Amino acid sequence: MCSNGKVDFRKGGFTLPGEAGYEKLTLEMAERWGADVIRDSDGTKLSPEITEAGYRIYSTICIIREHNAFAGEHPDAQQQTFLSSDPVVAEAEQLEISPLDGYFDEQFQLNDTPDALAWWQVWDRTEGKEVPRENWTFRDGKVTIRQCTPYHRYTVSFLCWRIWEEINMYNHTTNSWTTEHLRQLDPRHPGAWEYLKNWLRVWCENNPQTNVIRLTSLFYNFVWIFGADLRRRTRFTDWASYDFTVSPAALDAFRREYGYALTAEDFINGGKLQATHRPPTAHKRDYMDFIQRFVAEKAKALVDIIHSFGKEAYVFYDDSWVGMEPYGKYFSSIGFDGLIKCVFSGFECRLCAGADVKTHELRFHPYLFPVGLGGLPTFSAGGHPEKDATEYWLHVRRALARETVQRIGLGGYLHLTIGQEPFNRAIENMAVIFRRIRALHGEGKPAELPVTVAVVHTWGSLRSWTLSGHFHETDGNILIHINEALSGLPVKVRFLSFEDVRAGALKNADIMINAGRAGDAWSGGDAWKDPALEAEVTRFVMEGGSLIGVGEPSAREGGHPFFALSHLLGVDRDTGAYACHMPWSFETEKEAPFTIRREAIGRTEGIRLTDPETKVLAAEGNTPVLTLHHAGRGQAIYMGGFTYSPEAARMLLDMILYLTGADGFQAGLSDQAQVEAAWFPQSATLLAMNNGGEEVTAHIRYPGGVCEAKLAPYAEKLIELS
Amino acid sequence: MCSNGKVDFRKGGFTLPGEAGYEKLTLEMAERWGADVIRDSDGTKLSPEITEAGYRIYSTICIIREHNAFAGEHPDAQQQTFLSSDPVVAEAEQLEISPLDGYFDEQFQLNDTPDALAWWQVWDRTEGKEVPRENWTFRDGKVTIRQCTPYHRYTVSFLCWRIWEEINMYNHTTNSWTTEHLRQLDPRHPGAWEYLKNWLRVWCENNPQTNVIRLTSLFYNFVWIFGADLRRRTRFTDWASYDFTVSPAALDAFRREYGYALTAEDFINGGKLQATHRPPTAHKRDYMDFIQRFVAEKAKALVDIIHSFGKEAYVFYDDSWVGMEPYGKYFSSIGFDGLIKCVFSGFECRLCAGADVKTHELRFHPYLFPVGLGGLPTFSAGGHPEKDATEYWLHVRRALARETVQRIGLGGYLHLTIGQEPFNRAIENMAVIFRRIRALHGEGKPAELPVTVAVVHTWGSLRSWTLSGHFHETDGNILIHINEALSGLPVKVRFLSFEDVRAGALKNADIMINAGRAGDAWSGGDAWKDPALEAEVTRFVMEGGSLIGVGEPSAREGGHPFFALSHLLGVDRDTGAYACHMPWSFETEKEAPFTIRREAIGRTEGIRLTDPETKVLAAEGNTPVLTLHHAGRGQAIYMGGFTYSPEAARMLLDMILYLTGADGFQAGLSDQAQVEAAWFPQSATLLAMNNGGEEVTAHIRYPGGVCEAKLAPYAEKLIELS
Repeated sequence: MCSNGKVDFRKGGFTLPGEAGYEKLTLEMAERWGADVIRDSDGTKLSPEITEAGYRIYSTICIIREHNAFAGEHPDAQQQTFLSSDPVVAEAEQLEISPLDGYFDEQFQLNDTPDALAWWQVWDRTEGKEVPRENWTFRDGKVTIRQCTPYHRYTVSFLCWRIWEEINMYNHTTNSWTTEHLRQLDPRHPGAWEYLKNWLRVWCENNPQTNVIRLTSLFYNFVWIFGADLRRRTRFTDWASYDFTVSPAALDAFRREYGYALTAEDFINGGKLQATHRPPTAHKRDYMDFIQRFVAEKAKALVDIIHSFGKEAYVFYDDSWVGMEPYGKYFSSIGFDGLIKCVFSGFECRLCAGADVKTHELRFHPYLFPVGLGGLPTFSAGGHPEKDATEYWLHVRRALARETVQRIGLGGYLHLTIGQEPFNRAIENMAVIFRRIRALHGEGKPAELPVTVAVVHTWGSLRSWTLSGHFHETDGNILIHINEALSGLPVKVRFLSFEDVRAGALKNADIMINAGRAGDAWSGGDAWKDPALEAEVTRFVMEGGSLIGVGEPSAREGGHPFFALSHLLGVDRDTGAYACHMPWSFETEKEAPFTIRREAIGRTEGIRLTDPETKVLAAEGNTPVLTLHHAGRGQAIYMGGFTYSPEAARMLLDMILYLTGADGFQAGLSDQAQVEAAWFPQSATLLAMNNGGEEVTAHIRYPGGVCEAKLAPYAEKLIELS
Repeated sequence: MCSNGKVDFRKGGFTLPGEAGYEKLTLEMAERWGADVIRDSDGTKLSPEITEAGYRIYSTICIIREHNAFAGEHPDAQQQTFLSSDPVVAEAEQLEISPLDGYFDEQFQLNDTPDALAWWQVWDRTEGKEVPRENWTFRDGKVTIRQCTPYHRYTVSFLCWRIWEEINMYNHTTNSWTTEHLRQLDPRHPGAWEYLKNWLRVWCENNPQTNVIRLTSLFYNFVWIFGADLRRRTRFTDWASYDFTVSPAALDAFRREYGYALTAEDFINGGKLQATHRPPTAHKRDYMDFIQRFVAEKAKALVDIIHSFGKEAYVFYDDSWVGMEPYGKYFSSIGFDGLIKCVFSGFECRLCAGADVKTHELRFHPYLFPVGLGGLPTFSAGGHPEKDATEYWLHVRRALARETVQRIGLGGYLHLTIGQEPFNRAIENMAVIFRRIRALHGEGKPAELPVTVAVVHTWGSLRSWTLSGHFHETDGNILIHINEALSGLPVKVRFLSFEDVRAGALKNADIMINAGRAGDAWSGGDAWKDPALEAEVTRFVMEGGSLIGVGEPSAREGGHPFFALSHLLGVDRDTGAYACHMPWSFETEKEAPFTIRREAIGRTEGIRLTDPETKVLAAEGNTPVLTLHHAGRGQAIYMGGFTYSPEAARMLLDMILYLTGADGFQAGLSDQAQVEAAWFPQSATLLAMNNGGEEVTAHIRYPGGVCEAKLAPYAEKLIELS
């Protein structure tokens, strides 16, 4: 059984955060964890004793930050955004609005320069109409609107400077930092751009010890809008929104290139902004493409500089990542040597692993910081960093079993590991396992079922695996739970847009999944008003394909049926349109064709059968929560919701096996829901993983027969079966 | 204390169902319950011993039913309806649909006469387009559609005869009747109309003993569509829908009168039909008005015949009532002498009492029938008719305290009362109390608070008090609970449409209530897309009026905010549009300005504050369920839902007192939530009612001071305080 003796699993593929002042610790931990790379972090530096110790060195650079002197001299080089005032009701024919009321004045400052003011708008939101420019004026920080309709609501859409780099702002406000507020430069500003390129050249010259520049990240932060009131400090945050890329210069360039002008309303969108969770307007799609090309072009220029100094350029896929889009059209053109993703979850591992770049690296959690995300004490009194690390590892491990990455690592203040022996041991073990799994992948891919699952939503491959940020930021969305489950299953997964589907992309799929809430980007919203889309999915299923719909799949506002695919699913949701139409009564089936994990399946209010032939596999009161329906030669499963757990993932796999008629021998299926396995045929090795906290003996079916494995809580085993 | 000695409260205002074969019982019970009228019922007859005993006699006639011989000879005189086939997916370019598949073939029969077939339609429901007539044919009960788009869904909209009168059908299928199926005639058929008028004349001639013809009711039944499958026997039922009035003749007459043609789709409406709970199309409004005029004209002709024989014409407000509309424009023109309403609830009492007719009569429940509505055993083994009667009485009594009616009564098989002494005693007592309350009203109206509550919804006064049928048929709607509460409160209540509001009708109101679910007729749906409506309600509140919004008030599909009045309410509902927008955190107020009945208030998913100034009076988890918000000089209360109970009604009254600053002295408010009172100033009498099952001592404030009243469970007292 067990390991491959030829390879040293004690060293390599590990990036350690070093810390000046803790040189001995740095070198000790590098040895213990088998690091081959030492990096600095936000807030730490490396000393010569570290950089000259024979390790490769990563240096972290946030290119648009830490240029406060330049920003002070060239305030017009700072970044901007559109904001909208809160609505104010006119009680007379004249109304005054202070646009920034309610926003954090340390983050925002009105941009009332003439070129910015030209983009401002005033809206009568009751009427849904822009107020003619001659009816409003701006003076002394206030907009005065004349000829108002009394008792209508008015808003002002305006440009403002962002005078505090948001990650720095977060650290100040969350961790009580007291240092100077860092500003950020817009690379679209010609003077700033020349300055930044030159700054990078000088930096490269001055830092010969650095092998890899770790860009954190590029130019534009995800959108993070703070409010004045602590009862709503974060007003808006979206990891994949593009609002922070805007400026009069960008808008002018867009107009020249696209032949039409965007307006403030393309961003403000009635006050909703355009969150990633909602289907984008056509204008937003154009704008995103425009920004992606700009970011790629500028990023390539930086990478070229870095390469010219013989260094490699890795990019951290977070913070100021907007426009970089590793699954977008222009990413490859940048020429990055590596992509680093911080991971809590399996889907993030797959997200990183699937990007077109040479080196994929995972930065594990927890970050070595006194307080973790969401305020967990982690490395402070009462914290349990080893528990946090193990929890994240369990999510990541099953994804690592499916797709390989080249490296893992940590970040933060290394001195926080002092005295944290359980944590240090846990990381040591994870690093060894990581290297062993990586070695298996090196010998040949793990076996998959002959099944391709197509996850279909508005964004398609651009938002492969992720929705918009981490799991805990998006866990109110069903799809992130589905993606997390899929990240460790032995099936091919593709992310398709509705355009892809219309163009015939389902022909290579066995199962289509649509999972979301009515009107969101994941369910699809208005896309389902297109008869061609409905017909194509109908063809797919009736000719023998399978459909899994979760939550409010294919829901269309005002549609009847509400689910465009209700004729396939055999269920629909009553949002009131079925008033006076009695539902079919039903009895729940006594036996289901797969094991149901009831606790993983949510209830969607108002679900009813549209066909008496729909089999109800589980119900809550009179509401079906899990159904099965035949349509033509295909089948459809409906679930009211889905919450990720290892057992839920197994149920999803069992559904896939049932729908496709595949068996589990090929891919190494176990008889215990908490145990997953990956079969590596080239190495004749089974990787068995216990996802649960109980010791378990599992019987794992693989092409050679059945293998019994006894696994300690959370443990994995590599079993050679040649 | 107590009664007015001058009036005999033992007799009068009571209608007894007599029964041939039980003559002695009939006369005994008439004496005991103080009847002045004896009636027959569906299924019973009166013998000469009864009709000649000195009582006034009501005779029940269902004018369009029991003419099977005529219907057999003139099948084209039968009533009709539009139906739609269930959708069928085309798998090729040709598709066959059997339109009646899934419908109850004892109720419906295809009408494929040429004049009917001209109104049939075939729809591509995927595309949302009608299929050109040249692309489909009808033969042998099947529609064949050619040039289909594969994988689109198709339906056939068709006319069919209704060959079984629905109330008779219900009695057969529910109570296992085995007599001949009764058919129904359409008074629009010229031959049928002449036949019916003549039949009525003959009937009047032959029945000189009858004083009052009790029409049950007029021509067109409420819509009740049966399915073939017992798992969904009732496919659709709506008490206030007009589908059963349709025929080619009606459609032709409409076209001549309105200058445009309706189509099947005006009725079928994508398969939804047009339920009363949903906002009607403009075409449906026209059609309803058209039918109302027709029904009034024909009804007047019948009433004239009845009057010509010296008899009175009362109408039962149920069953075939469609088009009669006591709150419509044409009702008064009919000339009815009386309106009879069966009542489970207080709102039904107010509904009857408010109609413009001389005599208002309530038919109490339970009906003397072996099995009650909803399958209760009532007068069968295990039944408790006295409990049922008391429960309904408690609802009705508080409404009777507010508005007077002239008569009460019962219906059904009198012999079922044999041995039901508790029931017989309960009815005896109720009849006495009814007469005493009626006498108080006769001396002068009870005191009201100086408050007018405007209930605002799509239908306005046309649907005063009711939604569409009885409480238990519509209790999934918040508004029926509100109406039931209001039916016993000492305030003026008006029902306004959105057109009324736009025309300024709120100027006479102190409080506006809007209560419903997004998109329904009670909340208002698309009406709230009109800026003039939003502005007028905003004016009303900001100038000092009060708003109570419940559930999803003023919700507009696709609107942002979702509630058009969110700026007044201080809350909105997130249906996904607030993605990435953080909500205001809040703390629930420690004290509320009125007593909260938490159990009466529902939770609406996704409610969030739109203003930090909104006071949260109650919350469930992070969801506010009861809030208070100031807007200008007015205030708004939001409730997540509302379930009627006496205590809930008292909370609503306390809200009204708080919002308007009124006090409870004038109207006789008690210090016990389960006790209500009405103060009759002319009689200087307090009517105190215990709505609860516990004995209670209440202190009741009235203009003269405070009166203490000890009340047995469910009991009332009349207290003279002069």
